This record gives sequence, structure tokens and C-alpha cells, in this order.
Amino acid sequence: MDSKTVGILGGGQLGLMLVEAANRLNVKTVILDAEGAPAKRINASEAHINGSFKDAEGVSKLASKADVLTIEIEHVNTEILSDLQKKNDKIAIHPSPETIKIIQDKYTQKEYLIENNVAVAESIAVENTIDGIKNAGSILGYPFLLKARNNAYDGRGNFVVKSEASVVEAQAALGANTALYGEKFVPFVKELAVMVVKDIKGDVYAYPTVETIHTDNICHIVYAPARVPDSTQLRASLLAQDAVKCFPKGAGIFGVEMFLLNDGQLLVNEIAPRPHNSGHYTIDACVTSQFEALIRAVTGLPLPKGFSSFSTPSTNAIMLNVLGADEPDGELEYCKRALETPGASVYLYGKSSRPKRKVGHINIVGSSLDECQRRLDYILGKSLSLEDVTQASKPPAGTSTKPLVGVIMGSDSDLPVMSEGCNILKKFGVPFEVTIVSAHRTPHRMSKYAIEAPHRGVKVIIAGAGGAAHLPGMVASMTPLPVVGVPVKGSRLDGVDSLYSIVQMPRGIPVATVAINNSTNAALLAIRILGAYDNKYHKLMQEYAIDLENQVTAKAEKLETVGYENY
Amino acid sequence: MDSKTVGILGGGQLGLMLVEAANRLNVKTVILDAEGAPAKRINASEAHINGSFKDAEGVSKLASKADVLTIEIEHVNTEILSDLQKKNDKIAIHPSPETIKIIQDKYTQKEYLIENNVAVAESIAVENTIDGIKNAGSILGYPFLLKARNNAYDGRGNFVVKSEASVVEAQAALGANTALYGEKFVPFVKELAVMVVKDIKGDVYAYPTVETIHTDNICHIVYAPARVPDSTQLRASLLAQDAVKCFPKGAGIFGVEMFLLNDGQLLVNEIAPRPHNSGHYTIDACVTSQFEALIRAVTGLPLPKGFSSFSTPSTNAIMLNVLGADEPDGELEYCKRALETPGASVYLYGKSSRPKRKVGHINIVGSSLDECQRRLDYILGKSLSLEDVTQASKPPAGTSTKPLVGVIMGSDSDLPVMSEGCNILKKFGVPFEVTIVSAHRTPHRMSKYAIEAPHRGVKVIIAGAGGAAHLPGMVASMTPLPVVGVPVKGSRLDGVDSLYSIVQMPRGIPVATVAINNSTNAALLAIRILGAYDNKYHKLMQEYAIDLENQVTAKAEKLETVGYENY
Repeated sequence: MDSKTVGILGGGQLGLMLVEAANRLNVKTVILDAEGAPAKRINASEAHINGSFKDAEGVSKLASKADVLTIEIEHVNTEILSDLQKKNDKIAIHPSPETIKIIQDKYTQKEYLIENNVAVAESIAVENTIDGIKNAGSILGYPFLLKARNNAYDGRGNFVVKSEASVVEAQAALGANTALYGEKFVPFVKELAVMVVKDIKGDVYAYPTVETIHTDNICHIVYAPARVPDSTQLRASLLAQDAVKCFPKGAGIFGVEMFLLNDGQLLVNEIAPRPHNSGHYTIDACVTSQFEALIRAVTGLPLPKGFSSFSTPSTNAIMLNVLGADEPDGELEYCKRALETPGASVYLYGKSSRPKRKVGHINIVGSSLDECQRRLDYILGKSLSLEDVTQASKPPAGTSTKPLVGVIMGSDSDLPVMSEGCNILKKFGVPFEVTIVSAHRTPHRMSKYAIEAPHRGVKVIIAGAGGAAHLPGMVASMTPLPVVGVPVKGSRLDGVDSLYSIVQMPRGIPVATVAINNSTNAALLAIRILGAYDNKYHKLMQEYAIDLENQVTAKAEKLETVGYENY
Repeated sequence: MDSKTVGILGGGQLGLMLVEAANRLNVKTVILDAEGAPAKRINASEAHINGSFKDAEGVSKLASKADVLTIEIEHVNTEILSDLQKKNDKIAIHPSPETIKIIQDKYTQKEYLIENNVAVAESIAVENTIDGIKNAGSILGYPFLLKARNNAYDGRGNFVVKSEASVVEAQAALGANTALYGEKFVPFVKELAVMVVKDIKGDVYAYPTVETIHTDNICHIVYAPARVPDSTQLRASLLAQDAVKCFPKGAGIFGVEMFLLNDGQLLVNEIAPRPHNSGHYTIDACVTSQFEALIRAVTGLPLPKGFSSFSTPSTNAIMLNVLGADEPDGELEYCKRALETPGASVYLYGKSSRPKRKVGHINIVGSSLDECQRRLDYILGKSLSLEDVTQASKPPAGTSTKPLVGVIMGSDSDLPVMSEGCNILKKFGVPFEVTIVSAHRTPHRMSKYAIEAPHRGVKVIIAGAGGAAHLPGMVASMTPLPVVGVPVKGSRLDGVDSLYSIVQMPRGIPVATVAINNSTNAALLAIRILGAYDNKYHKLMQEYAIDLENQVTAKAEKLETVGYENY
């Protein structure tokens, strides 16, 4: 596709996935890393360089074989890259060595972001002495975070200093020769992240805002999109884009990690100037993965244009990191369950397994995050039955997990009316569920409910609604099941509005409408529908009819016996 | 993932994509093909074998390095494979040599399918002599298809014999030493295809039914799903599964190509016992690609279980083959446009370009096949503006391509009422569109319309509906735009039913309801809404008000002048 060769500093799993993306575009890649690095495995080239990505000679060799250099790890020697850039103006380096230099020292990064008005947690430089650390504690207050300025990853280089008593332990943990900084402890409620691509012209493109769950400081699970309101997702995306825009020019992809505080405030935690673990979900949930986006950005190939280029309105995904288990290959259990699970894809990196080592990841996509979560639970061994997972959806909470009748209403204010019908269903021993589905306030939930109900074994839906009362008709239009509509009387118009709305359906989509507020009849009608095929309910309905008859004849007898004046 | 090594006979693009899928699962692969074959490029292994996949020595070397053999091309020597299987019971060969043997001779394949009650076009063996071919013509009638029994692909080895006069030309085209068969010409209306996976136990799994468009006998475009009714898709899927089930046991993936006739009948055209061009769309449109499915099937790894495992309800995709252009690298134009196009992914195979050679493919996904088609048109250079393509959707046919007001109605019977409002919009020079969107008969179209309207620049929606009249309220619940509702009077209840349905919306989702049948007011209200921000409409509305005032004052003057008896 492009005649440029991309030289990559580092050949771990991020390099591996970069090479994979480049291969598909006929973009040649050369790797600088130790022999046998994962990225070399899928690239049968004689050109690879064995050595460290920190080493001047290796970098210069790599540059001689490439038109563009990029990185899959930020712990590179930026002096070497800057020198190279000065000596050789034919080589393009993305992101720019200046940007990498600012970012790789996490305290410099923080200072730079503050200068550019990007919100971050309060941070100060810390002298690596007991007194220096204590001094930081008195400024930032306890607990605070003591961090190594350089070479930190996956929680290494971070220490939570709980009180002055743990200062000695903190220094020992981070090392007496490590450059340090201190960060005010931020009581965040969630961690969010956004991948931002910057092209050669400086335009930025954001992937959806995701939520990251860390366990033991290692990224464990990513939810895409983040389980926060749309407005918070949007604010996070804008903050991430602003953060990336402020760095010196040069293309690249940036993983921007943020804290969401209790009061809704967002702070940038840290930025990685390369593909990032929080963006692995993009391989399955987005048309263009973070890896392909970087390859395109650094080679100047076009990126997709226009609204929602990097996502679809239906992006719902969870990423699970596969970490080496304590027993050899124990992590493959998760992978095998993932292979059985619809919507799940397994990515292994060809790395030997060691406890807690990132050896792969699993992407799960689904029609909702709930569905993804159920699939994740199965993969994690929390749910015993694959059947539960492969069902279209779990039933909403109600009286039965295998309901035959679904009772739904537009609002909880309809419940007093609808519960009469529920009592009838209960009396007849019909398995049913009850929930609130609003046509107007939750249109997509309604559509999901209507579409999934038959797959869950529901045979009849009873829908109650008041006022404009669109629920029964709309549900009927999205399911082939029989729908019984109960007009619920509002405080005005006496329920005639709901009656008209429910009963006056157009030819083609019938709603079995019962009388205003008469959910009893709706339930009885539902049982008659079940009884048409299930003899049990047929018999019960016959008995019920006889019972009714007996009641009336008893009354008739009484009336005839005592006379109308004495009745 | 699995300690088995898979040996692949053939290393073209199908082999390449198989290796890519295997890499992600840590499944090792070894390739037997000429040096530098595409599949070897992404697999840095010392173990590859240079040579022909038809050659006994190469196959035996391959077997010595693998636990499982599979193929990416059916023109292999099945005797060698059968012998190998007899000598070495440790090696698994999928699909079985017997199956490959039956399939690779296309006439044997046809006979086998007929024996197994799978519908195919009438076929007869043909002696390769002028008289033999003429004899076939007299049995099958002209035109008929004369085909090579073996080694045919991409239309090579096929000849349409139009009349007895072209018999000599036919023989010359196919070669005097080629084994031939004749096939009755089938007047098909579409070509369909289904990829079917068979696992080691013999269970089959089908991918969605697709439609293939051939140009010059080479697959050009694939539509997934096929643009035929759901029932036809289902019948095609069942026919394909039946066809695959009838072959001897052994895992594999099978591309089943079918003809759809005028009368709805389906006939199997031919079967490929390997990944297939018609299945390339699965890389982007399905969670598990055809390549990964084959790797999993032959190594005995689990396949996803349950309902719609291989697709999502939203599978909408088009695959475009990238064929070498006449001018060098001319085909890269398509690829570059594809990179700009949302929803499009480019796959290049690292093959040198020659006219008509398959050097890559482009997958396009979208929320509808229409959207995919617009994206395809842009990629093919048929549509000049990317803007048209990146719009959420094309506006429905109406009076303007950049409408500010969307006028929708539940049925064409509402048009006489709604056209009065349209006339007002026209009179005021407001760009608008008019279409039919039924809440009950087209609920998903409605939801799409409501969601996309603001992205297309629509500012106000006017929705008219009669009877249960759910359209205005439901649209309002799925868009943040202001919605004006017009109750349309039906033949009963005088329109009160529609009025109540539209006006009695719950708190939170307002519909601006106007009087029964009064679309004039709806249009005027819409123009007032536009005028709140656009001074042009504000002024026009002021002038209109003055005009109305003048009309009334003129009448008042007349009344006061002539007196009420003479008015």
C-alpha cells in the first residue's frame, strides 16, 4: 500500500499487533528487539535487528532500514532519537523524540500538562531522601502516591505512602537511586481511558471512552464504552483530545488514562505515547484497530473520515487480559471457554507463560454490555452454564426465571393496576415476570425486550400504559408474540386517551385490548392463550369459568330466594 | 493454545489468512508452497517447505513437521494424501482425502451430490471429441456449459457452448486432453453462497447466506447477507449444510456456491473444500472468521456455541475483491479511497500486481446494506464526494437533499392531510423532505430515521399519524429534535383517538401537538422554530403574521362597513 518501511522500537505484543496491522496493508516493518521477540514471529524478514531498543547502534541500524520510526514502548533513549533526527533528515520519527521525552518522565509529563491547562492531580518533585519524602507527605497530606519518574509500568514504580511511618518502606520499595515525584491521592470513583490518534497534520481522532478495571495495578478488564453517562464519556474524550493536542507536533497514538472523581471532575492520570492495553478492544469493536490507526498515521495513509469513524453506534465490548496463571498454562482455561462463547475472540502473543505476565487478551462483543458481562462471567468461570450465556438475554427480575408471561408497564405508577393481573397469574401458577419498560423513556430497552422475549420462552406479553400509552402497540410491532394491552386510567380524560391509543392500532399489528384498568382480564386472556396449547391452563380456565358460574348462580339463587328488596 | 502444528498445503492468500488466524491462537503452522509464498511472509519459521503442494516428497516432509494437514487449494494429489494417511496414523488430514478427491473432480462432485439427493444442475460426462461434445449438446440443449472436470478456477475451464457451430472453439478453449463434462444451462437470477464449517465430530455450523457478483467469471463483489428474502436465505443455508453433511467424515470448511432460479428453486453449483473468496467478509462482519473457524475445526479447538454464533443480527457487509489493474498499482486507488471510508477495511496479500490477479480485498461494514453500497460506490469512484458517504445516511427522496424539516407520516393515506403543511413549507422556501415512516409496520426504520435525522441536519420533525398514532411520540422519544405531531382524523372516532395518542405524552418527552388534521399549523410551528435561530425565517414569519392581520382587519372593516346582515 505504501512503499515506506516502518521501523519499530520494541517487539512485544504491541509490536506484534502493529506488524499484523501493517502486513494487511502491505506496509513493511522491521523490528529492533531481542531475538525471538513476538513481533518478529509474524514477520519473516531478514532485516530485523537483534538488540535493545535503548541502544544507539541498534537504533541507527534500524533507521538505516526504515523510512519511519515508531515505538511500542516509551522507555527508549530519546537522546539517540533526537541525534538521529538531526543527522538524518530523511527519517521520520513518530511520535517526535521531544514528545516521548516529555511523556517518559512522568513528573515532566505532569508539569507539561499543567502548563497546557490540562487537569491533573497535584504533583510535586520529591528528593529521594527520607526527609524529602516526609516533606512531600506534609505538603500533599497522607495517604499520597510516591512514584518513580521513569521506567514505571503495570504499577511497578508506584507506592502508596499511608503515613509518615511507611516512608522508609516506600523508599526501599522504589529504590534509593530512583528519581521520584509525589502525587496527591485522588479519591476517584472510576478510571477512564481514551485512545487518541494524531495524524501528520496534527488532526486528532478519538476512539470511544472506556473504563478500565485494575487488579494489583495491572489492567484486568476494559469496558467499552465506559459505564458512565454519555456526557461524562464526551467530557473525557474532549479532555483526552486536548491533552494529546498540546504535545509537540508529530503523528502517533496516545493512550490517555483519566480519573473520574465523585463530583464528576476528570483528571488526566497518565499518557502513553503508543498503542495501549486499554485499546485492545478496538481490534473487534472498531473497524480500524488502534494498531492499524498508528500504522496509517505514521506512514501518512488516510484515516477514515467523518462522524463516528472509529466506532459504530453499537460498540459494546469488554476486554479481558489473559495473565499467566500460577500453575503452568492455567490461563488457557479462560481461553478455551472463550472459544466456546459467542462474541468472544482470543488473542495470544506467543509468549511463554509466567505468573501475572500478559500473555494474551480476550475481546468480547455483544449487543449490550450486559450481554458482554454474562459472556465474561462464563469465561471467568463465574457462571456454570454456557446455555445461560448463549440465551439472547437473561430475564428481568420477576417471579420466575423461565416466565411464560411477561408483564410490563410504562411506569411504576401503573403497578397498582397491573398487580391485580399479576395476582391472577400467581393464583393460576403461571410463571411470569414483571418489569418496567417505557416506550418513551427507554425506547431501546423496549425494543430489546420485545425482540428478545420469544427467545427467552415468553409466550404472551401483557403491557399496561396510561396517557399516550404507546407501549403495547410498539411492543406488538416488534415481536410476533400476542400482546395484551391494558389502558391505565390517568388523572385526566378518565383513561379514554389510553384506551384509544392502545385499541386503535392499524391493520397488521393487533393489540388485544382489555377494559380500562382491567389487568385481571388481561391476565385471564393470557392464560387462555397459554391454554390453547397447554392443557394444564386449559383445564384451570375451565374450572375458573365453572367457579364464576357458580358464584353467579349462587347470587341468582339468593336473589330469587330473599327477593330483590331484601338482597 | 493448542500444541498441534498445522501443515498447510498451499501458501497463497487463503494460506496467509489461515496463518494469521492461527498466530492469534498460538497455533503453529508450516507451509508447503513455492519460496516466498504469501503465507510464509507472516510466519517466521525455519520449518517451511519449498516445493509444490502436488509433490509427494513435499507433502511427506510437511507431514513430518505437523500433527494436522489441511489445504488452502483443492488441486492437490489425493493419492499421496491417502497413502500418507495409511502409512502414518498419527497425522490427521482435514478435510479427508476422500472428500477432496470427490470434490476436485467437478463431475464426480456432481454425481456424488445427486446420489445424496442434493439439488444440482443436470450434468453428464462428455467424451472429449467433436462428436462427444455435439452429443452432449443434443442431450442438454444449447446453450450448455462445457467444463473441465479438474483444475478449474475463476472461470478457467468453463465454456458456454452457444450452438453446434461453437463446438470446435469450445474444445480448443478447454484443450483436447482435458477430461470434460457438460452441464445444462440454468437461467439463474442470483448466485448465492454459504460457508459451512464441519467439526471433527461431524457437526456443521453455517455462516450467513451471501450473494456473489461475478465479473468475467471472477468473484467481484459479495453482499452479506444476500439481497433475497429471509426464507430464501434460510433455504440456501439448509441446502448448503445438507450438501456438506453428505461428504465423508473429516473436519473442514466448505464454500457452497448455489444458483437461485426464477421460480425460487436453489441448485448447488459447486463446492470448495477450503476457505473461499465468498467468505472473506467474515473477517470483519463475524466474530470468528472463516479462517479461524477452519483452524479451530481441524485442531479440535471449540467453536462458538449457540444461536447465531457466526453472525450478529447486524451483519451487513460487502466484500470487494481488489484485482490487479491494467496499469501498475492502479488498483491501489481503490484501496486509498477505502482507507478514507468509514466502515471499510483493506486487506492486501503481499502479491505482485498483474492484471486481474487477486491481490487483496476490501471489506465494508455498515448499519445497512444501503450504507455499505454507498461506501462501495465511493471506493469504486462512482460517487465523487466522501461527504455523501460519511453522512449517517442519505436523506429519503423529497424536495431537498439538505432538508431542515422532515415531514413523515405513518401511511400514504395521511398524505392529503400532510401535503397542506408541505405546501406551506414550500411557500416559505424551507428545504424539507417527505416520507412514510410507520411506527408499527417499520419500527426499525422509524428508529433509524429518528436517530439519524439530526446528523443529516434536520432541525424539526413534523409527524402525522391517525388511529393509535404512535409515530410522533415514538420519534420524539428517540431524537432530541423538536417533534410536531399532527393528529390525522380516521374514519371513526373523529380523530379524537389520534389527538389523545399524540398529545397525552408522559413528562419528559414532549410532542408539540397541533389540531386534528391541521398540518398547516404544524408547518408554521416548524418555521417558527427555525426562525428562533435563523433570521430569514423569523422575518418571513413576521411578514406572514402581518399578512394574516391584514386579512382579518380587512374582513373586520368589511363587516363594520356592510353590517352583519349583508356580510
